[in-house]
Amino acid sequence: MKKPLILICNDDGIEADGIKALTKEIRKFADVFVAAPHTQQSAVGHSITMANPIRVRKTLMFRDFYGYAVEGTPADSVKIAVHTLLKGKKIDLVISGINQGANTAINIIYSGTVSAATEGTILGLPSIAVSLTSYTYTDFSAAAKFASKLAKIVLKNGLPKGTLLNVNVPAVKKVKGAKVTMQGKSNWDDNYEIRLDPANRQYFWLTGSMNKMDKTTDFDVKAVDEGIISVTPIHYDLTDYKFYEKMKNWKL
Amino acid sequence: MKKPLILICNDDGIEADGIKALTKEIRKFADVFVAAPHTQQSAVGHSITMANPIRVRKTLMFRDFYGYAVEGTPADSVKIAVHTLLKGKKIDLVISGINQGANTAINIIYSGTVSAATEGTILGLPSIAVSLTSYTYTDFSAAAKFASKLAKIVLKNGLPKGTLLNVNVPAVKKVKGAKVTMQGKSNWDDNYEIRLDPANRQYFWLTGSMNKMDKTTDFDVKAVDEGIISVTPIHYDLTDYKFYEKMKNWKL
Repeated sequence: MKKPLILICNDDGIEADGIKALTKEIRKFADVFVAAPHTQQSAVGHSITMANPIRVRKTLMFRDFYGYAVEGTPADSVKIAVHTLLKGKKIDLVISGINQGANTAINIIYSGTVSAATEGTILGLPSIAVSLTSYTYTDFSAAAKFASKLAKIVLKNGLPKGTLLNVNVPAVKKVKGAKVTMQGKSNWDDNYEIRLDPANRQYFWLTGSMNKMDKTTDFDVKAVDEGIISVTPIHYDLTDYKFYEKMKNWKL
Repeated sequence: MKKPLILICNDDGIEADGIKALTKEIRKFADVFVAAPHTQQSAVGHSITMANPIRVRKTLMFRDFYGYAVEGTPADSVKIAVHTLLKGKKIDLVISGINQGANTAINIIYSGTVSAATEGTILGLPSIAVSLTSYTYTDFSAAAKFASKLAKIVLKNGLPKGTLLNVNVPAVKKVKGAKVTMQGKSNWDDNYEIRLDPANRQYFWLTGSMNKMDKTTDFDVKAVDEGIISVTPIHYDLTDYKFYEKMKNWKL
């Protein structure tokens, strides 16, 4: 049987440990093509590069495996892989990750990892974003194994047009299974530290902690806090239909 | 009666004509505070700057009016204005714009203009994004006047928590009224032009045109094509609830 072709991307850059761990695991059953930003691109949101040209460089990722380093954003990487590097080939799935740091609740909208998977979805491909919920915990094995399992399920079941899966794997030794969740309502209690540079000029640095508002494991934030892998189906249809119905009465 | 305090931002940068036209119009009835990126930031999506410090500079926008140029993204500009520059003040409304170029259909997710308004919403403030649907048409008067009218309506009616308004004004001499719409389903038929630099190395440049799939003026794309101002209520709750219900049966 022909192996599926899976495009892998991320936002931590092609040299990150997370994308290497994911690539190694997925290669066990699929042909893998990697196109990822050449450098770290966290919190870029769904940026694309329009005003500038983009260069692409073939780069050794490990042993004899080469990926493509894209001088652009996560979404650029997916777009350029689909339109040019893999042109004419049938891509069966896009996986973005494994990101270091949670992409739950409001973080989803700032996430380059999710944006790469969103771009896959926009281009008509089933797509999954995978994050490990810690910046310091570096054991990607549970996340890579679950990504592999979910990839097989999605390859079999498919996903609705316009829908992608956002996966968050708790950074713990033993995860307590996986659950389909909703995007949490938690937000950031953020602020700026005001500092002075050596010439006594002010600069600002973003700081803050998450305001946890989600009480049940039906929401991504709480699920990962309880050691459960969270899988949230998300889409990019942003219309607020409920308010749309009410607002139709406004006199504009 | 105390004037409302309105925070104005954009993604074309503080020197753009669109933000100046909007500021002049809104100042007719409100106190205006401008915090906007120091340079053009189109297609940055919902980026925020976390890894680097941000500097802010007071800058003359016109006559005797000063705004704040933020060395960051549209979302950074709103965040830093709310948290530091306007700290302790009651902000009544955030308006982002006037952008040059449509932010309809799929463009919404790439839009820095919309992301600034989204950030306002995240911070609990009623917010509006305003775009003029052309890169070349430079008469902002209709867009500025409608922004002013809608601002007054929103100041009076409020908006639901988590919901913002995305406005697109057709670039025509005479608009045919305004309509509450839904985000269109149109997408990009995009690709990359492959070129060679003087040293014969390949580079890629994004190109493409919109694939118009929206047939009625109930959708943003078609409304502006028909000369109607489009007002879409959007939110950042990305959960695909319909598929969530089905997906709960998946064995993960």
